[in-house]
Amino acid sequence: MQNLTLALDAMGGDFGPQVSVPAAMQALRQNPFLKIILVGDQTKISPLTSSFQDISARYEIIHTDEIVTMSDRPAHALRNRKKSSMRLAIELVRDKKADACLSGGNTGALMAMSKVLLKTLPGVDRPALIGRLPTVADKPVYVLDLGANVSCDSEALFQFAVMGSVVSEVVDKTVSPSVSLLNVGIEEIKGNDQVQQAGLLLQQSPQVNYRGFIEGNEIYSGNSDVIVCDGFVGNITLKTSEGIAKFLIEDLKSQITQNWFAKTLSKLLGTKIQSVLSQMNPDQYNGASLVGLRGIVVKSHGNADENAFLNAINLAITEAQRQLPELICERLESILLDIQAE
Amino acid sequence: MQNLTLALDAMGGDFGPQVSVPAAMQALRQNPFLKIILVGDQTKISPLTSSFQDISARYEIIHTDEIVTMSDRPAHALRNRKKSSMRLAIELVRDKKADACLSGGNTGALMAMSKVLLKTLPGVDRPALIGRLPTVADKPVYVLDLGANVSCDSEALFQFAVMGSVVSEVVDKTVSPSVSLLNVGIEEIKGNDQVQQAGLLLQQSPQVNYRGFIEGNEIYSGNSDVIVCDGFVGNITLKTSEGIAKFLIEDLKSQITQNWFAKTLSKLLGTKIQSVLSQMNPDQYNGASLVGLRGIVVKSHGNADENAFLNAINLAITEAQRQLPELICERLESILLDIQAE
Repeated sequence: MQNLTLALDAMGGDFGPQVSVPAAMQALRQNPFLKIILVGDQTKISPLTSSFQDISARYEIIHTDEIVTMSDRPAHALRNRKKSSMRLAIELVRDKKADACLSGGNTGALMAMSKVLLKTLPGVDRPALIGRLPTVADKPVYVLDLGANVSCDSEALFQFAVMGSVVSEVVDKTVSPSVSLLNVGIEEIKGNDQVQQAGLLLQQSPQVNYRGFIEGNEIYSGNSDVIVCDGFVGNITLKTSEGIAKFLIEDLKSQITQNWFAKTLSKLLGTKIQSVLSQMNPDQYNGASLVGLRGIVVKSHGNADENAFLNAINLAITEAQRQLPELICERLESILLDIQAE
Repeated sequence: MQNLTLALDAMGGDFGPQVSVPAAMQALRQNPFLKIILVGDQTKISPLTSSFQDISARYEIIHTDEIVTMSDRPAHALRNRKKSSMRLAIELVRDKKADACLSGGNTGALMAMSKVLLKTLPGVDRPALIGRLPTVADKPVYVLDLGANVSCDSEALFQFAVMGSVVSEVVDKTVSPSVSLLNVGIEEIKGNDQVQQAGLLLQQSPQVNYRGFIEGNEIYSGNSDVIVCDGFVGNITLKTSEGIAKFLIEDLKSQITQNWFAKTLSKLLGTKIQSVLSQMNPDQYNGASLVGLRGIVVKSHGNADENAFLNAINLAITEAQRQLPELICERLESILLDIQAE
């Protein structure tokens, strides 16, 4: 396996180094080809690495005590957080010192900094946050945008459709991925102006296998390979899904452990129930990528625990191994040339 | 119990009279004070009532063979469906021949026709579709708008907050209901312009117990009594929730019936599991109301089955019994006068 270096914003996320550093150490143990640069407050990071001396050759700490807070506006972060752990991690990718970077911090700031420091791919105006979600059909669905762009015009939605299609193609080898627009109904008359205009643009583009509108209850059906929406809708939809899954998992657990009889039975039934519920456990699907950039930036949930954060690290590794930006760039270029030539 | 008359658009919904008529017959059997006017195609409705001769004094059929289709644009339906089952049912409420009406048809058309025929309450520019959803906390949450208004400015969101607050107050006797705005983050900087502006308006209004932004994963937490969003976001959020709940219920059922051992055990555990899952079963919460009108209009899910449709009928009955529009009008007037007086 080729060596890979990951730049980690160790301070991002609700729990900061308490979660990011142990997850990084786990990732190093699991992947002998991996190197991690931990960016953040050395006094907080170092104590958490002390019992990992045996792998100390594969991690280093770049110290900074500046951070991007969750309430920083993107423009403010861009201007005033020049030594922040988030920015330094992205700069390591820009300067080719890391193959990918990862943060659990402020999404808006991550998006703004990545766009300015790494630049977008040719033909892409705005990067999007793309996530890979489970479906009933045992194949994933890509959903974008998950929150990087809270308002999107039809042109942005169109570009997201092209990017999502390319990601599904290059990551999952899906042939002609089916693309749907998330809307309040499947009839042509439904929806707001942006979605209706985006639908018309997609209908006129044979390069995208556009299947029309899709409603919320179809997201997890597996009938689409790619689902496109603006970041406001995408973020709320994803978080709602997580809320429900967590509620069901917790409630069911508490119910079946309430008495010894149910407890005994549930142990016997346990693996079945667990396997169903874990399909919907958001922790297992942690990590969304900013797509459309000239570099790999992965966003972990702010409230990820160690395991969830590790999943995000693994996503960054996979993308770096597959050289996702290069593949996307190639496919995008040919699609966009096709569209321009029409 | 005081007699009540319900006007039913028997043709609305994916299954038309096949679902609406049997549900109506059940409702009549359960509620001796109830009268139902079935509006729609007599040739399709009559055969479905033939085994209910014993209650024939309490239903009548108003025949029309015109319907509003799911692909009719609201303006088109308003101009060209003047004899449609949906319109005639609303007219029965306008003409005081029915206390409430119910349809499972085209939401946009229902909204447009209701607004024109029934008019909005003083101080209300646009009616909203409000739904009552279950939460982990064993108390409901009201969410609006669920799809009547696909684009909303901050003023509309503000009015929805006032209306939702009044509904929670008058229906559930909640004292000073807490109101939140659905957003992509809880920090003040988060969200699009409409949501940010609406947040500022609400902060300046002591008449509403405004608690700030809320994220998707908190919808079902029970931490808010009222959650406000535009109809695009609300519709997709609700349908996504339904999709997940149905997926989990079906998947779990299929898993625990796959072999005899699991099957036997699951029967013993069954009631527990069922009780948890049924909390999230959308059929049990079918029916959303158009609020802000001078009359009661309830919308059933298009794909409701007989039981779900019956739940929507029961919702219409409850609202009529409590004289919801009058109560809302009263509270709204006092709040709006308060606001204007400032």
